[in-house]
Amino acid sequence: MSTDLARLSLNQATCEACVAHQVPHIGVWRHKLEGDSEEIWGKRIRDAGLGCSSLCRGGMFPAATAEERRRHIEDNLKAIDQAVGLGTDLLVLVCGGQGGCDLDSARAMVLDGIGAIERHAAKCGVRLAIEPLHPMFTADRSVIVTLEHANDFCEKLDVAHVGVAIDAYHVWWDPHVYREIGRARGRILGFHVNDWIAPPPDVLRGRGMMGDGVIELKRLRAAVEEAGYTGPIEVEIFNERLWSKPALEIVERVKKAYLANC
Amino acid sequence: MSTDLARLSLNQATCEACVAHQVPHIGVWRHKLEGDSEEIWGKRIRDAGLGCSSLCRGGMFPAATAEERRRHIEDNLKAIDQAVGLGTDLLVLVCGGQGGCDLDSARAMVLDGIGAIERHAAKCGVRLAIEPLHPMFTADRSVIVTLEHANDFCEKLDVAHVGVAIDAYHVWWDPHVYREIGRARGRILGFHVNDWIAPPPDVLRGRGMMGDGVIELKRLRAAVEEAGYTGPIEVEIFNERLWSKPALEIVERVKKAYLANC
Repeated sequence: MSTDLARLSLNQATCEACVAHQVPHIGVWRHKLEGDSEEIWGKRIRDAGLGCSSLCRGGMFPAATAEERRRHIEDNLKAIDQAVGLGTDLLVLVCGGQGGCDLDSARAMVLDGIGAIERHAAKCGVRLAIEPLHPMFTADRSVIVTLEHANDFCEKLDVAHVGVAIDAYHVWWDPHVYREIGRARGRILGFHVNDWIAPPPDVLRGRGMMGDGVIELKRLRAAVEEAGYTGPIEVEIFNERLWSKPALEIVERVKKAYLANC
Repeated sequence: MSTDLARLSLNQATCEACVAHQVPHIGVWRHKLEGDSEEIWGKRIRDAGLGCSSLCRGGMFPAATAEERRRHIEDNLKAIDQAVGLGTDLLVLVCGGQGGCDLDSARAMVLDGIGAIERHAAKCGVRLAIEPLHPMFTADRSVIVTLEHANDFCEKLDVAHVGVAIDAYHVWWDPHVYREIGRARGRILGFHVNDWIAPPPDVLRGRGMMGDGVIELKRLRAAVEEAGYTGPIEVEIFNERLWSKPALEIVERVKKAYLANC
């Protein structure tokens, strides 16, 4: 079993619990930035001795009207500014579901949307990570559901600061996942771990702890590293049963599961 | 709205309700063949004036031991005989989940398994339809989760009686679905309709009635027909709320939804 925690990053756990357990990074969600400015939150995280591995999320581009799409673009520009305020250089994009549009149109709106924000991101020194979600989220969360599709978009945009975030839960099933991880060489901006419980107890919040499911996490991690990724490995587990436990206990379990199974 | 019911086939509805509503075909599930032999069931269906569009299901090939895999092959040979007894020439294959194996091995076992039964199928005049399932079923129901993968297997096996069954619910999200429907020309052995409710009320039994969700059914049907498919269009809706209603009422709703949305 590995004892190296240097790349572990926790999503959705409290700063205090991370610090107590020497987890070096946390991933931050925009809707959790409450009460204070992102600058104050950023300082709080740094003062606690933690790094902020990413801000989640921008995206959600498709919409039925031009006015709505424009509002989404503005929200993304704001998210880029928030990333700067927090002190992270990475914004994760959950691209958005169909938004009342047909699938081809919605996918085109995602490409247009990223095209419309990438210059502001470049100016701010913020990288954008397209995160393909599992196909079961196509309708309502992301019409980008394969790493191949995310890679296609990166190649079309062809700028150094747009890449991909690879989440084990979303991509593990794909017959082409290893080919596409190789193809993503040089633009892998994030790697998330968790597990797939079979059958899933819940669509949205039924993710498992690493080692409790069927995902070949060590093989995925090896492929991602072989493709040149050396950044944080973020644990992202949405699971109601887990969330109900005390933060310190969760972080302890995450650390053990990460070292044993990733 | 179309008024042509000639190709409508119902899965999981009673014969009596189908006959009352002039639905011409039904799809039969093996585990519903209770009490009597398949020959008696076949005669019962024909005597009611119905055709049997397919028998579901063979498959479930992957397993951790050679002994278990051998038993699954035997069960598939029996399913082929049952199709003959019922008087249908089509066995739908739900290929099986990982069965305790790593994903690559499980996928190889599916190809081996179909290879081991296809000669018996040919001898019996039974066609085998590989049905790719939605990726959310990879772990426990089918490691074959894209039409591309099913097409790859058909090309590797390269026999006229092995083809694919295309279920809208399982394939609609795929960026390559229209390319792969075109590639499946000449080997499309079944087409199933239903709908994707967003978010799904239940993973396994949350399918919607045609028109209640986001699937572009008319576009899919047009593509399948453009690729030469002229067979039955089977309605396959697993939904607890729907099942709780009287069969006659369900069949009436299915007919309306089929004519309006497919």
